[in-house]
Amino acid sequence: MLKISAKGHSMPESPIRKLVPFAEAAKSRGVKVHHLNIGQPDIETPEVALKAVRDFSEEVVVYSHSAGNLSLRKRLSYYYKTVDIELGPEEIIVGSGASEALLFAFQSIMDPEDEVIIPEPFYANYNGFAKNAGINVKPIFSSIETGFSLPPIEDFEKNISDKTKAILVCNPNNPTGYLYSRQELETLRDIVKKHDLFLIADEVYREFTYDGKVHYSAMYLDGIEENTILIDSVSKRYSACGVRVGWLASKNKELMATALKFAQARLSPPSFGQIAAEAAVDTPEEYFVKVKEEYLARRNAVVEGINKIKDAYCPKPLGAFYVMAKLPIDDSDKFCKWLLEDFSFEDQTVMLAPATGFYSSPGRGKDEVRISYVLKLDDLKSSVKVLEEALKVYPGRT
Amino acid sequence: MLKISAKGHSMPESPIRKLVPFAEAAKSRGVKVHHLNIGQPDIETPEVALKAVRDFSEEVVVYSHSAGNLSLRKRLSYYYKTVDIELGPEEIIVGSGASEALLFAFQSIMDPEDEVIIPEPFYANYNGFAKNAGINVKPIFSSIETGFSLPPIEDFEKNISDKTKAILVCNPNNPTGYLYSRQELETLRDIVKKHDLFLIADEVYREFTYDGKVHYSAMYLDGIEENTILIDSVSKRYSACGVRVGWLASKNKELMATALKFAQARLSPPSFGQIAAEAAVDTPEEYFVKVKEEYLARRNAVVEGINKIKDAYCPKPLGAFYVMAKLPIDDSDKFCKWLLEDFSFEDQTVMLAPATGFYSSPGRGKDEVRISYVLKLDDLKSSVKVLEEALKVYPGRT
Repeated sequence: MLKISAKGHSMPESPIRKLVPFAEAAKSRGVKVHHLNIGQPDIETPEVALKAVRDFSEEVVVYSHSAGNLSLRKRLSYYYKTVDIELGPEEIIVGSGASEALLFAFQSIMDPEDEVIIPEPFYANYNGFAKNAGINVKPIFSSIETGFSLPPIEDFEKNISDKTKAILVCNPNNPTGYLYSRQELETLRDIVKKHDLFLIADEVYREFTYDGKVHYSAMYLDGIEENTILIDSVSKRYSACGVRVGWLASKNKELMATALKFAQARLSPPSFGQIAAEAAVDTPEEYFVKVKEEYLARRNAVVEGINKIKDAYCPKPLGAFYVMAKLPIDDSDKFCKWLLEDFSFEDQTVMLAPATGFYSSPGRGKDEVRISYVLKLDDLKSSVKVLEEALKVYPGRT
Repeated sequence: MLKISAKGHSMPESPIRKLVPFAEAAKSRGVKVHHLNIGQPDIETPEVALKAVRDFSEEVVVYSHSAGNLSLRKRLSYYYKTVDIELGPEEIIVGSGASEALLFAFQSIMDPEDEVIIPEPFYANYNGFAKNAGINVKPIFSSIETGFSLPPIEDFEKNISDKTKAILVCNPNNPTGYLYSRQELETLRDIVKKHDLFLIADEVYREFTYDGKVHYSAMYLDGIEENTILIDSVSKRYSACGVRVGWLASKNKELMATALKFAQARLSPPSFGQIAAEAAVDTPEEYFVKVKEEYLARRNAVVEGINKIKDAYCPKPLGAFYVMAKLPIDDSDKFCKWLLEDFSFEDQTVMLAPATGFYSSPGRGKDEVRISYVLKLDDLKSSVKVLEEALKVYPGRT
């Protein structure tokens, strides 16, 4: 019988993409839709990166090294030196985005049915990578009440079994914006050391920290050098999501040799993207100063705006460009669809990400949404106003 | 215990890459190494494709649609019209190279332990994609004596089990250069129809046919529209391997919806590569005329040269840019290594691909090598001379 695979059936559909047709329909009715649902920044890609691509002067666009161009990996090694992390070019494997790099990491350390522990809510695509690798995610609940800080150590311990191979944390966090402290990372170090687990640290938002807080990398942790796998990317740092350049990095030689076999099987990461990524490391400091100022103003506008809305609440996160908001609603999926299908205020509405997609425990996130502050300040302020008006009339208000 | 996965252990190492350190060592001894081992053409990427990338004028490099830019898919749809294939943009999903597209196809139609039948010798990376998807390859022997024509139908039939989900053919073939005829494709149609299998046709070399022969696509086959999956790429056609743009195409809606879920989980294919690929469709016809003339002259030089060597033989293939040669040697892995480590003629040697890497049946390919004719004619002629001299003195000569 001609049929698709059980694996294909099990692949999750993006909780956000399900709403796209409703957003399209709203637009065709003349309603302006503010997109607060995605992690696609509106910030300009640094000129130095675009120029490098425009200056491409080779005659043939050839395969690169399977681990990525050596010149790029050397440049990344230099970047890490500037943030006090020692990583040689041979300790880095470049993928088609952090997506592929994380998949290489999963496949290199886990077999089907093995488990990775991830504090939830977590980035929805982790589910897709896990399904792809045939592994299972064990979520550990973190609460909006504590601002999504690290769950207590006992919650990790009681979920560790023979199948557990790794703990994955995203820091600063998508979707919560939470910035894990040095102390929390040291707690994670103690757990992975005690139970001989890998610690996968997704640090693609490492540059985006606010209120004077400094990012504490998992690569700073002593005594678990063989356990730590760093996932990183140029997508968010240089607002260059489309170049598809991310990487994994680790001092564990056996792991890197294995990941390289997966990398070799697909030949190489994209050449033009690597050129952009290599040049992007030279982005002047002013760029980040401006970008961070902009994000900070946006975060403040969103957080203050949401907290002024009756019965709405959102913590003030210290990193990334997301906030999770708790709203007086019955069902975030229904609410987000309703916003697009049945509501507008002054011919505007907002597209939000229902938080249910970021929890893997059923039933969680029904009264929460994720807001990406990737729009200009004026649009963000209008969006908060739209949300406030919407909550006044939403039939499923609780 | 901190250890890598069984899956990682099972990932094959590229049979060609194993030789790279020996090639490096030869170069450091001052020996010129002619690289006949890889499918990286030396042909220029069309100017129209490079110009499109240099002309990039957006301010932000954003994620594309997960299936690839609609404008690219429309352009590919137009390309197929020119070769009498009807494929709408919604019947195409763009991947990071044909590598990713084929992996999406494998994962969408096969679960772990399912089987795909492939005539051997076959492209070595099929093993990597199969291992990655957890599936098994059932090789069907095709012989150099028949020029690697399609094995008899009985050989397929006796390998079909409950686990068999697909037959995969590469046409024109890598590594053999064999061009399957319309009649052979109709045989495959009858088999897949009778047994309800998918037919995966890897046609990335579709433009490269010689001696007046025209490529017959699997997409021309009537009555198996739901079964057929086309794999294609710009890498070889436009000598643009590094852009990492390939795709799968099918009229099977359920399959495409499933493949899209895998595509969504990794967000999008590379943006710059897609720009190059879209523009490449406008490559003027003269480009192909010149390129095919060049490859034809190269093929003739290699085939005639090899067949003049005592006890060496190679068929005259009608497609792609590879030939398989049978040589009077004990072990192609040993021979190819010896060429780099212990031999030179007039300060030159050649790097070849041992054919063992293209067979999955143990023991096969020991007296065969694959030669890629991706070098200038003069270098190719020198390479054949080197090979001839080498065979005079190789200690493992049979």
